[in-house]
Amino acid sequence: MKEISALLGYRSSIKVVDATLRDGGLVNNFDFSDEFAKALYETNVKAGVDYMEFGYKASKEIFDENKFGKWKFCADDHIREIVGENQTDLKIAVMADVGRCDYKQDILNRSDSPIDLIRVATYLTTIPGAAHMIEDAKNKGYEVSCNIMAISNTQESDLRIALDTLGQTPVDVLYIVDSFGALYPEQIARISDMYMEFAEKYNKKIGIHAHNNQQLAFANTIEAVGDGVDWLDATYASMGRGAGNCAMELLLGFLRNPKYNIYPAIKFVEKYMEKLKEEGTVWGYDLQYLMTGILNQHPRTAISFTKEQRKDYTEFYKEIVAQD
Amino acid sequence: MKEISALLGYRSSIKVVDATLRDGGLVNNFDFSDEFAKALYETNVKAGVDYMEFGYKASKEIFDENKFGKWKFCADDHIREIVGENQTDLKIAVMADVGRCDYKQDILNRSDSPIDLIRVATYLTTIPGAAHMIEDAKNKGYEVSCNIMAISNTQESDLRIALDTLGQTPVDVLYIVDSFGALYPEQIARISDMYMEFAEKYNKKIGIHAHNNQQLAFANTIEAVGDGVDWLDATYASMGRGAGNCAMELLLGFLRNPKYNIYPAIKFVEKYMEKLKEEGTVWGYDLQYLMTGILNQHPRTAISFTKEQRKDYTEFYKEIVAQD
Repeated sequence: MKEISALLGYRSSIKVVDATLRDGGLVNNFDFSDEFAKALYETNVKAGVDYMEFGYKASKEIFDENKFGKWKFCADDHIREIVGENQTDLKIAVMADVGRCDYKQDILNRSDSPIDLIRVATYLTTIPGAAHMIEDAKNKGYEVSCNIMAISNTQESDLRIALDTLGQTPVDVLYIVDSFGALYPEQIARISDMYMEFAEKYNKKIGIHAHNNQQLAFANTIEAVGDGVDWLDATYASMGRGAGNCAMELLLGFLRNPKYNIYPAIKFVEKYMEKLKEEGTVWGYDLQYLMTGILNQHPRTAISFTKEQRKDYTEFYKEIVAQD
Repeated sequence: MKEISALLGYRSSIKVVDATLRDGGLVNNFDFSDEFAKALYETNVKAGVDYMEFGYKASKEIFDENKFGKWKFCADDHIREIVGENQTDLKIAVMADVGRCDYKQDILNRSDSPIDLIRVATYLTTIPGAAHMIEDAKNKGYEVSCNIMAISNTQESDLRIALDTLGQTPVDVLYIVDSFGALYPEQIARISDMYMEFAEKYNKKIGIHAHNNQQLAFANTIEAVGDGVDWLDATYASMGRGAGNCAMELLLGFLRNPKYNIYPAIKFVEKYMEKLKEEGTVWGYDLQYLMTGILNQHPRTAISFTKEQRKDYTEFYKEIVAQD
């Protein structure tokens, strides 16, 4: 059982990462207004959030700039239009997917960029590619984290090799990612222990990025906190792909470090996130995501179900069980 | 850390209690159609649910029968209209509040009733009254459980006295009740340990009834399962007062005992619970409930906020912080 004091005190090594523009952008093709992005930035500053992820550094060779909002590509100048010289304690992050980013040209030197942190995202099958990107970003002067996605359907022995490989790179933070929202807190506890073993061996930090398919994104995040995980992803009103993520307002209500404030988060959700919902943007926990979560499947079928405004949950269940 | 095998196997002592009509009745004044109640009963039978709580045995002296649906009072004949002679494995439960139930006259002998389980609900201040009701129900031949409500703002030493007092009654099950949705899984683990200590001393079972103010009703319920808690309350689509309860469909997706089936639950939610929502019945997680949960307050202010269809969450936050 965890220390009774842990819920009253706090660990100053904890970092909160706002992923609203990035994971939320997967819901609305990154169609956020500049007003939204600026208000989000100011909210994060006031709420004491440590990092704000603006979106992806996606390859313009692979993705058509006309089909996505600007945060799919996160040009440094577009970030500057929101943050200016960013004279705040809030640091700026972007995500770069292995194989879907022209990182050598699109990621400039940190000294020339408003970005502080490069978040490399990889599957277990592309770890060497991730290692190259980590080296590149580190050489350019950035803080670097690495998300190993979709770990809920990987073999533990493979995952250990990946962690050992990444441990030998200059990456700063290794992320536990429950892409399918399939994991229970008991499993997060065991996975955290495994990640912590490599964190101690290689002097890295551990992070968690959870999905809310089973209404466990927040629960899994605070389970991980109790297990020594320091970097915590959250999004306002849980906005993120499919069932969404750990809600920032829940996380800020839980953390005891006085630098964090829930009030600006509530204000932002009231003014901006409720508006997105009213305008018809749909994300968050629903039966179809519960089902793909339970079955440890990618949420793509559930996302289609949602987009088609289907409500025949039992038919959907039969369809995805048949795919198992 | 919990045993790795526990998530793959199952504990046959676990009981699932459907509280939809009872806790959900607090949302709509027990205004459920007979069709709904019958379909719910049949769903519970098919899903392998162990107990179905029909509602309250409320005092007709205190509550006006014209102002509530019939499940506020749970006349035995009304239950029979739904379950007949109940030739199934599903057992029937009702709740009786200390001080709000004429239990001596309104609860008949079990041999004359379709009811199997009397669920006595008490605050910490009415434990002797609860003990009398437990004795009465036991003498009449029932299984008996006791919910100690609102424990998140009680003193641990007082709670221990209550558990020791109730341990000496013939009650079968003692319930952990997070009425305000204020507790985190770490706290549930410690509270479960305390309850288990008295359960072992007096040979009782332990149950949990969670609320979803912080999206932790399911997480707290499965935390408790891992800590040895056997009786698990859930409601379809989380329907229950304020932020609602642990969702039955989440719980059935988690439990590994082959007697439980999620499919009938999904079917029921699709056909009946979605309809209730479309007709305008409102319950479930929302910012106002998160706020009362974090502040460990009764949800009544948040329920009023919901009924008034207010959306000014920041004003509400200021109001309830001022009450603290």
